Order: sequence, then C-alpha cells, then structure tokens
Amino acid sequence: MTLVVQKYGGTSVGDLDRIRNVAKRVKAARESGLKIAVVLSAMAGTTNKLVDWVMSLDAASFDEAEYDQVVATGEQITIGLLAIALQTLGVPAQSFLGWQAGFRTSADHSKARILEVDATAVKQCLDEGKVAIVAGFQGISPQGRITTLGRGGSDTSGVALAAALGAARCDIFTDVDGVYTTDPRIVAKARKLDRITYEEMLEMASVGAKVLQTRSVALAMQHGVRIQVLSSFDDKPGTLVVDEDEILETQIVSGIAYSREEARLTVVAVNDRPGVAASIFEPLAEANINVDMIVQSVSRDGKSAALTFTVTRSDLPRALNLLELAKEDIGFDRIVADSNVAKISVIGVGMRTHAGTARTMFRTLAEKGINIQAISTSEIKVSVLVAEDYTELAVRALHSAYGLDAA
Amino acid sequence: MTLVVQKYGGTSVGDLDRIRNVAKRVKAARESGLKIAVVLSAMAGTTNKLVDWVMSLDAASFDEAEYDQVVATGEQITIGLLAIALQTLGVPAQSFLGWQAGFRTSADHSKARILEVDATAVKQCLDEGKVAIVAGFQGISPQGRITTLGRGGSDTSGVALAAALGAARCDIFTDVDGVYTTDPRIVAKARKLDRITYEEMLEMASVGAKVLQTRSVALAMQHGVRIQVLSSFDDKPGTLVVDEDEILETQIVSGIAYSREEARLTVVAVNDRPGVAASIFEPLAEANINVDMIVQSVSRDGKSAALTFTVTRSDLPRALNLLELAKEDIGFDRIVADSNVAKISVIGVGMRTHAGTARTMFRTLAEKGINIQAISTSEIKVSVLVAEDYTELAVRALHSAYGLDAA
Repeated sequence: MTLVVQKYGGTSVGDLDRIRNVAKRVKAARESGLKIAVVLSAMAGTTNKLVDWVMSLDAASFDEAEYDQVVATGEQITIGLLAIALQTLGVPAQSFLGWQAGFRTSADHSKARILEVDATAVKQCLDEGKVAIVAGFQGISPQGRITTLGRGGSDTSGVALAAALGAARCDIFTDVDGVYTTDPRIVAKARKLDRITYEEMLEMASVGAKVLQTRSVALAMQHGVRIQVLSSFDDKPGTLVVDEDEILETQIVSGIAYSREEARLTVVAVNDRPGVAASIFEPLAEANINVDMIVQSVSRDGKSAALTFTVTRSDLPRALNLLELAKEDIGFDRIVADSNVAKISVIGVGMRTHAGTARTMFRTLAEKGINIQAISTSEIKVSVLVAEDYTELAVRALHSAYGLDAA
Repeated sequence: MTLVVQKYGGTSVGDLDRIRNVAKRVKAARESGLKIAVVLSAMAGTTNKLVDWVMSLDAASFDEAEYDQVVATGEQITIGLLAIALQTLGVPAQSFLGWQAGFRTSADHSKARILEVDATAVKQCLDEGKVAIVAGFQGISPQGRITTLGRGGSDTSGVALAAALGAARCDIFTDVDGVYTTDPRIVAKARKLDRITYEEMLEMASVGAKVLQTRSVALAMQHGVRIQVLSSFDDKPGTLVVDEDEILETQIVSGIAYSREEARLTVVAVNDRPGVAASIFEPLAEANINVDMIVQSVSRDGKSAALTFTVTRSDLPRALNLLELAKEDIGFDRIVADSNVAKISVIGVGMRTHAGTARTMFRTLAEKGINIQAISTSEIKVSVLVAEDYTELAVRALHSAYGLDAA
C-alpha cells in the first residue's frame, strides 16, 4: 500500500471546523487506498500567543529550553484533537509527540536540527492500520528535553518523517494551491506549475516566494523526498517538487521571483589596494550580516574604486554603523545607501543548457527603461537589482518575455 | 537544607502577573534557607477550554488517551513560564513534564493512578542548586503515552513528589488561606485551624469541604507527608494537615461540615425477609451508585419494614429508575424520594476518647426544633440528615455548641 505523509499548516487546523475538515481529507485519502501519516502545525495564532507570553516575562535573555517547553504545546493540542476527529469518523488514529515519534534533535533550543528520526513506533501504528498523527516543529534533545525546530519547522518535520518512513510523497497542505510562475498578486496571468525541481524551488524560496521553507526543500532534495504543495481548502492537485529526472520537458525558465527585502550600499572612493574588500566584509561577517550581490568598479585614474553590495534591509542600520566604525581602517570617502531597491530573479534549470537567458532579461528590462544596479548569477538563476518602484513592471515584462503568461 | 514542595493551583498561576507573584514567593522561600521543588496546575480556565474542545468534537465516546494528550498541555505552559519568571529574578530553575519528573502511572487515561515516582532527575536538579518545577496532574503510562490524573490531580502530584523526595512538607497554595472550623460563608465566627489530622481532613473533604481532594490527603496520610494549606495571595501561615501525634492538645470536635449533595429514598412496606436489603442495594452497586446512610424500621406487625437511605443527588433519577425496574423482585409498596435534604457532620479525632459528642449534637438540634431523618457515625464523625432549609441554622448552632466560635 502506498504511504503518503500529509502535513497541514496552522491555517488548515486553525479551529475545530477546520480540524474536522482535515479529518475528512485524511479519511478520503485513506479510502482511495493510501496509508497516511499526518504531521501538524499548531492552530494559527497559538504559537505567536505562547511566544508573546515568554517575551512579556523576559524579552532579553530567556532560557530557550523553557521557551521550547512552552511553545511546543501548540502542536500537542492539534494532534490530539485530530485523532479524536478521525475516530468520530470511524478512522482509527493515534497521536505522537515529537519525542514519541522518534524525532531526535540537537540541543540548539528554539532552532534545533533533526539528527535522526527513529520511526519504529509510527511504523508500528501504521502497520496496525491506524493513521499516525505526529506533532511537527518539535523533538527531543540528547539531554531528554523538549526542543523546537524554529519557524517553518513543521514542513521540515513532514519531509523528515517521509524520508524515515520511505514515503512515496510528502503532501504539504497550506493556504495557497501550489507554486506559481510568479506572484499572482502582481501578474494576473501567472500560471500554477505542475512540477518544479528542488533546485528551482530553493532559488524561489531564497528570493522571497515563501511557499516552502528553504530548509525543508534542501532536506527533501538530500533524501529524494517528493513534495506536493497544495491547498487544504480545495480539491485540486498542487505543484510537485521533484528531482530534475522526473520532469520530462524542462522549461528554460520556470519562474520569476522578486524580493523587496534588499538594501544597497556603495562605498565610494575606496583605496584600490589588496585586502580592501576583506576589510569591508570581515566586520559584516562577524556581525552575522549576509552580503549578497557585489559589484566593483574602478575609477578612471585606476587608483580608487567604488564597491556596491546588498544586504537584507533590516540589517542596513547595523551595516552602516559597522562600516563607519571601520572607516579609518578601510579608507574610503563616503557611503551611499539605498533601501528602495528590489531584486528580480529569473529561475530555471533549463538555463544550464540554453544560452541567451541573461541576454533576454537585460534586453527586456532595457526596453522598459529599467536601469540595472547590480547583477548576480548562479547556474540556474539570474538576479538583478532595480529601483523598487519598477518591481511590478519588471516582473510582468519578464513573465511575458519568457513565455510564461497563461493563455 | 530543608526541602519543601510548593504546589500552586490554577488561580495562583492564572495570568502572567500571578506567575510573576509565584516566582517572588519561591524566591523568598529559597532565600529563607529552603530547597524548593514546585508543582503547578494549568492557568485557571485553560483545562476547561481544552476539555470543551474535545467534547465539541466527540462528547460521547472520545479516546481518553487523546484527551490526555490535549489536556496535559495546560501545565506544560505554566511550568515553562514560571521557570523563565524565576530566571529573570536571578533564580536558576528548570521545568519538568510529568514523564521527565518520573511520574509513572497506570494506563487509566483521564484518571490514572500514580504507580511510582522516580525522582532522580528532579533530585539532581535540586542538588545543582536549581528550583525544580514539575507539571502536576500528569504522568506517563507503561505504554509511553501521556496520562492525566483526573481533576484535583495536581494536589496528588504535589504530595507524591514530596513523598518521593522525602520533603519536610508539601505546601498547597490555593485561593483560601486554610482549613476552617466550618464554612465561613455560613458562620461568620468560623476560625481558621492551625492544625488538623489527616483523618479529620479526609472526613471534612468527604462531606463537602473541598479545600483538598480526598485522594491527596489519603496519599499524604499513607506516606506521612505533612501538608500545609495556605493562600498564595497573602503571607499568613495556613493550616497544617498532620499526623495525630503532632497535635498536642486535640479538640474533641475540630469542625462542622455540611453537604447539600444528598437525596433521601425510603422504600415503604418492603417484605421483611432475609436478602431483601441485598435485592435493593445490588442493582444500585452495579450501576456504580454510592449508598450512604441506611436506616431500617420495622412495622408494628413485624412483617414489613421501611428502608431509608441516601444517595448523591445527581444519582437520584437513576436510582429511582433502577428500583422501579426491580420492584417485583424486591417486593415493596412504594418509594418516597426527597432531594431537599442536607447532611450535617461533626468531625473530630477527640471523639474517640470522649463520650457524649453525639448526645450534644442531638440535644442542640432538638433545641432548635430540627428533626433528624437519619444518622450515621464513624470513629471520628457523627452525621445527621436534616431538611435542607435547616442547614445554616444547624451548622451555626453546632459550631457554638462545641465551642468553636471565634472570640
């Protein structure tokens, strides 16, 4: 019998009626001949309330092990309630806390890593013909204390359980019905993708398309777990996230993503001597500030340069402060900062074998009069930095240019 | 260093401010030179909300193991929050779920019995100079599933932990400041008792003075754990519940208790043959209906009798129904039922060695013109059944007659 792990997010189990609705879905999937293990989040809002309580007591330096003790209760409630909802439909079911389901994690409380999933108890439950319902987001440390995996950890729990059970698929139910070629709020003609590769999904997630957490996609890729993203509020098939081999005819470009979380910094008239880049980026790295796109330009006399790079917008004040402190050491004239920028990315595994993808991008943007402030590329992605005001125009133009518009 | 277990009820941890208040109390106790282990209930109202959710899904036949999974989350929240609140005051603390604190119970979900408390981990925590904070009301079954002990189970958790740790005392913090000679709402001159024996406390609890659950008092008596009942909202000493040996000068009567939970049944003109009492009480016992006071009177011709007894008021309809069904088998004329009755009890270990306690009771009631409908006695208690309207009058008269009124 084919085994599928179904993971339901916080909005899908947001109240008793929605939990009843999930129970009906699980029952239907079972009646279609599948063996089902379920992974649940807490009711939407519950985890935030619990986090608020901890913060009210001690926002500055709370003990993360105790934070985990409190915050892990949200999923414990939903798994028990779903088990009861299933039983009322005549479906045998049993709930498992993270530790009962064998989720052994590191002791990095509030952001623990899964070390191992010993799914023996869950397997036995499934073998007895029952639905196994596992609390997402949580596990147990080597010291026997409750841990949580950090925000978005429930997706990771679902994928890890699917890997441990050798499940055919991990269905991730959420409030959107799949992965789109771009944000449908910006491009009305955005199309839902039937399939997308792990690599593309990772790039989409990293540039702001937050359907799945990067972490869960990376784990799925590592263990070859097929993911389906779909809505718990309708019955349409979603988007499959799979290995490249499973996609017969790959598109050159699968999607256009954008992120408004960027800020640009230009260090002007920096001395063009060896080691100057290191003197700029070292203090930022030490402060855990991620630097993304980097462009260096040399002045006409060849003696000084301008260095442009991007950081996450929320890190901008800290980055400016750190560079001013190191001004003498680095030796520069001034810094120009701009947080009204956006990163637009064209993503597709087909790029690897098709030339001209970047050229199409640059030409399309030029035709619309959009100035490119910086460029970065990977094997399957080309990103450009543009003025934030042009975000929608750029995304729409590129969506058409790469033939992604729905008929 | 003297070790004390402090147990705080739901109203004492009802919100974040009250949890901060508990943290201050624990800190003060620690600074007075005590080693402290804490047992907590859930925030007042939380457990009811969780039970309501389960009932909304399936009121009829829910799985009690899943009920326990859901309901046990209340205490998990308060222990984590108290640990953080203590840490912000500079007091090292660690929280323990029932299973982490070694509470092994039977698999009778929703009403599990404690089989053993392996307090090794809690002891180690205390030895490291930390406050150990244990979730009350919960444990783990031999099958590794979460159990709860039933309502009032947190008191029992406190006493069981005190026994396992060999603590000097179990302080039970609640919203009243001790055990009174009678209900202060009825008798303004009721006095708070400094000490009371386990046996007296058991009798008080069993006739409606619900300061402590009978079960926790019985466990304390069995293991010789001294209990103190006190308020978490002021700083006065409470009432000690201790062994008789610890009370130097025992009062003949320690308290007057009453219960309006009674109903009286009289089976009239029952055949006075051997086995007739059995034929009445067997169907009630099978239906789990407790019978309390029993009075048998014989008719003048000696051939038929009337049998009067009491049951819990909520059991009255079921009892009547069962007896009507067995009418032919029993052989009686009719049944007279009255639910407007109250049981008034005079309690005191001193009765054992002092004659005349019952006589004082009967004379006092007679002087007030109160008719006694039935009588039952134990070694340390005399109970009478009276018309419910006379409850306050009877309690006040007896409180004075036994010299219990405050000066």
